[in-house]
Amino acid sequence: MTVQYKTIDEANQAVIAKITESQPFLIDVVPAKTVIPQLKENVLLHAGPPIKYSDMTGPMQGACVGAILFEGWAKSEQEAIALLEGNQIEFIPCHHVNAVGPMGGITSANMMVLVVENKSEGNRAFCTMNEGIGKVLRFGAYSDEVIERLQWMRDVLGPSLSKALKLMEGGLNLNVLIAKAITMGDEFHQRNIAASLIFLKDMAPYLLQADISTEDRTRVMKFLGDTDQFFLNIMMATCKAVMDTARTIQEGTIVTAMTRNGKEFGIRVSGMGDEWFTAPVNTPQGLFFSGYSQDEANSDIGDSAITETYGVGGMAMIAAPGVTRFVGAGGFHDALAVSDEMGEICISNNNNLPIPTWDFQGACLGIDVRKVVETGITPLINTGIAHKNAGVGQIGAGTVRAPLACFEKALEALAKKHGIEV
Amino acid sequence: MTVQYKTIDEANQAVIAKITESQPFLIDVVPAKTVIPQLKENVLLHAGPPIKYSDMTGPMQGACVGAILFEGWAKSEQEAIALLEGNQIEFIPCHHVNAVGPMGGITSANMMVLVVENKSEGNRAFCTMNEGIGKVLRFGAYSDEVIERLQWMRDVLGPSLSKALKLMEGGLNLNVLIAKAITMGDEFHQRNIAASLIFLKDMAPYLLQADISTEDRTRVMKFLGDTDQFFLNIMMATCKAVMDTARTIQEGTIVTAMTRNGKEFGIRVSGMGDEWFTAPVNTPQGLFFSGYSQDEANSDIGDSAITETYGVGGMAMIAAPGVTRFVGAGGFHDALAVSDEMGEICISNNNNLPIPTWDFQGACLGIDVRKVVETGITPLINTGIAHKNAGVGQIGAGTVRAPLACFEKALEALAKKHGIEV
Repeated sequence: MTVQYKTIDEANQAVIAKITESQPFLIDVVPAKTVIPQLKENVLLHAGPPIKYSDMTGPMQGACVGAILFEGWAKSEQEAIALLEGNQIEFIPCHHVNAVGPMGGITSANMMVLVVENKSEGNRAFCTMNEGIGKVLRFGAYSDEVIERLQWMRDVLGPSLSKALKLMEGGLNLNVLIAKAITMGDEFHQRNIAASLIFLKDMAPYLLQADISTEDRTRVMKFLGDTDQFFLNIMMATCKAVMDTARTIQEGTIVTAMTRNGKEFGIRVSGMGDEWFTAPVNTPQGLFFSGYSQDEANSDIGDSAITETYGVGGMAMIAAPGVTRFVGAGGFHDALAVSDEMGEICISNNNNLPIPTWDFQGACLGIDVRKVVETGITPLINTGIAHKNAGVGQIGAGTVRAPLACFEKALEALAKKHGIEV
Repeated sequence: MTVQYKTIDEANQAVIAKITESQPFLIDVVPAKTVIPQLKENVLLHAGPPIKYSDMTGPMQGACVGAILFEGWAKSEQEAIALLEGNQIEFIPCHHVNAVGPMGGITSANMMVLVVENKSEGNRAFCTMNEGIGKVLRFGAYSDEVIERLQWMRDVLGPSLSKALKLMEGGLNLNVLIAKAITMGDEFHQRNIAASLIFLKDMAPYLLQADISTEDRTRVMKFLGDTDQFFLNIMMATCKAVMDTARTIQEGTIVTAMTRNGKEFGIRVSGMGDEWFTAPVNTPQGLFFSGYSQDEANSDIGDSAITETYGVGGMAMIAAPGVTRFVGAGGFHDALAVSDEMGEICISNNNNLPIPTWDFQGACLGIDVRKVVETGITPLINTGIAHKNAGVGQIGAGTVRAPLACFEKALEALAKKHGIEV
C-alpha cells in the first residue's frame, strides 16, 4: 500500500483543500449521450449504488417507464414494462459515469444534462435539468405532460441555455453564485430560490443576445423564473464535480459521496476509492401535500445527498431557516441545533460559504467517518418525498438520516486497509 | 375635537389594521410631472421636512445642481448654483406631494417615478428609480455620467418598465414579493438583493413581450440584474403608500413618517395629521469605502426611513444578518438584539412579514411615540452615508438613531390635543 501522507489527519486536510480550492463553472447543456458514452440505446442511469430493476422502488421504476417512452424504445407503458421486466435494459449508477441524478436519477441518451467543469482539476460532472414541480419524471411520474416537458427541455430549454453559456467567457462561475445565495437563505437541497434567481439574472443578458426565437426565449425565462428548484440540479453537478476532485486524494476518512437508490444508502470514503459501503435506507419524515400521508412515503432515494456530502443541504440547515418549516424541522433554534450537531462530525468549516445566520461560520466541511462512528451522529439530509407507487410523483418534503451502518462498514474497511483495530 | 375611537389603543389598532390590510401594487413608471402637478419648471422636491436651499447639506445641494442640469434650466454648474443661490428655485418636501426620495430626494418634472397604488384604499405614492451605485444624484454627484444615466432612465428604463407593467393585469403584487424577500435576507433598506432579483424575475416575461428594441431590453435587464438596490425605491414608494393609508386614521400615537433633510429629523404621528415634529439629525456611524472616513460623513439624510416607519430596514435587522457586517452592526447576535430592542417600541408584529431568523415572528409593526418616550429607545435606521461635500457621492453605509426630541415633542402635542398632562 502506497501512502502519500504521514497521518490520516494530513490526508484529510489534503481532501478538504481539494474541496475549498475547487473552481466549478457551468459550461454547457448537452444531450447526455454526447458526454456519457455508455448511454447507448436500452441503457439507463439510476440514482444510488448499483441496483436491479426488480429491486427498485416505485418512483424509480416509474421513471424508467418514462425514460423509455421519452426515448421511443417502447410505444406504451405495457411495452416499456415488458422491456424492463424482460431484462432488456442495462442499468448503470449515475455516480459511475461522472453523473448524479435527483430522486430516481433515471437518465437516458437524449435527455439534456448540465455540464459543470471544476477548473481547478479540469474534471466534469453531469446532471439532468430540474423539471419543476407537479408531475415530474424524477418522482416517478410518466404521463404525457411529463414526456412533453422532457421533449421541450431537449429541444428548447437545453439548446437555449447552451447558446447563452457559449456567449459567456469560460461559463458561469458557480462559487460566486453559491456564496451569494447562502447569504439569502438557500441550503441548496430543499431551498434554491435565491440561487435560481441569481442564475436567471446572470443568464438573462446572454439569453437576450443568443439566437433564440422570442417565443422560446419568453418560455425559457418564464420557466427559469417559475422553477424555484432549478438550481438544485446545477448544485448537484457542482458538488459531484468538487467531490470527484476531492476523490483524487485516495487516502483519509472523509466521505466523498452519499447516495440512495430507494433500498440501499451508499457512501464512498476518500481512503477507499470507488468502493460503496451500503446499508438499508431510512424513510424520510416530514410534511405531506394535502391528501397524502407518511404511510405513502417512499423510502429514501436519489443522488441529491451529494449536497450534504459537500456540506450544504441538511448540514447547512441554519443557512435556510425559511426551509425548516417546509421540511417539518421546526423553527430557527431547531435549524441551529441541526447545524451545530452536524459540525460535530465534520473536520472543518468552509470559509468560502460563510453563513450569516450561523454568525458567519462557514458551512460544514469534511464529514469524517471516524467522527460519525464515534459520536453515533449520522448526516441529516433534507429531501423531497416521493409516493411509493410508480406514476404518482412528489407528495411532500422532509428530513432523513443516513444509516450508521454504512459508516461503520467503511471504518472497518479503512482499519483493515491500514492494518489496525477499530 | 371629534374622536372616533374610545381609547388611544383602539385608535392605534385601527392604524395598524390599515397597514396590514394594505394591498400595494406597482402599476406604472411615469414622468414625475404627470402625477405630481406641482412639478413645474424651477420646482424641485427634496427629502425630509421643509428646508431652504441655504440650509441644505452638500449632497442635497449637489443633487439640486444635477437636477437643474438634467432639466436644462441651466447650462453649467455655475448657472445652476446662481439659480439656486438667487432663490429662483421653489422647494417642496416629497412627503407633501405623495412622494418619497432617497438621500437628497431631489426630484424634478422629467425624472421618472415609480407609481405604487395601495388598492385597499386607492391612494398612490411615487419615488424615483434607483440609479445603481458609484456616482449618483441621490448622493449629490452631478457629473456627466450622472446626468446621462438619468436621461437613459427617462428615455429607456422608465418607458420599458411602463410597457411591461401595462401587460400585467393590475400591476405587480408587492405584498407577495416582499413576503418572499424577507425570507431571503432582505431588510429592504440597505439590502434589497433578493427583492430586486424577484422583481427582475417577475418582470422578465413581460419585458420580453413588450415592444422594446433588443438593445434596450438587454441593457434594461442587465441594469436591473446589476442593481442590487433597485427594489429600495419601490419599497420606499410601497411604505409611503401604506403609511399614507394608515394616516387616514387621524387619531392615536403611531409614527406614520420618519424622514431627514440633512439638518432636521422629522416625524409625523397618526393623531397629529400633517404636522412635522423635528429635531436636529444625528450622523450615521458605519463602515466607509476605501479612502473615506467618519470625518467626511454627511449628517443623516433621506426619505428612506419610511422603511423603518413601516417596520423594516433597521427595525428588521434580524431578517438580514448578511447586512449587519456591511453597516458595521456586528454579527448575528447584534442583529437579534437590535430587532428585539425595536420590538419594545412597537405595539405589534406584522404577520404578513414572518422573519425566519426571528423564529418566524412578524416584522415590527406600529412605532408608538409613547413607548419611545417611555423607554428612551429610538428607532435604529440602516442608511447609506453620503460625503458631506456636494458632488462626491456615497462613501459608506451604517446605522443612525432617530433623535428622541422629535418623539417628545409629538407626545407633548398629543397630550395637549387630548387635554392631558404627559
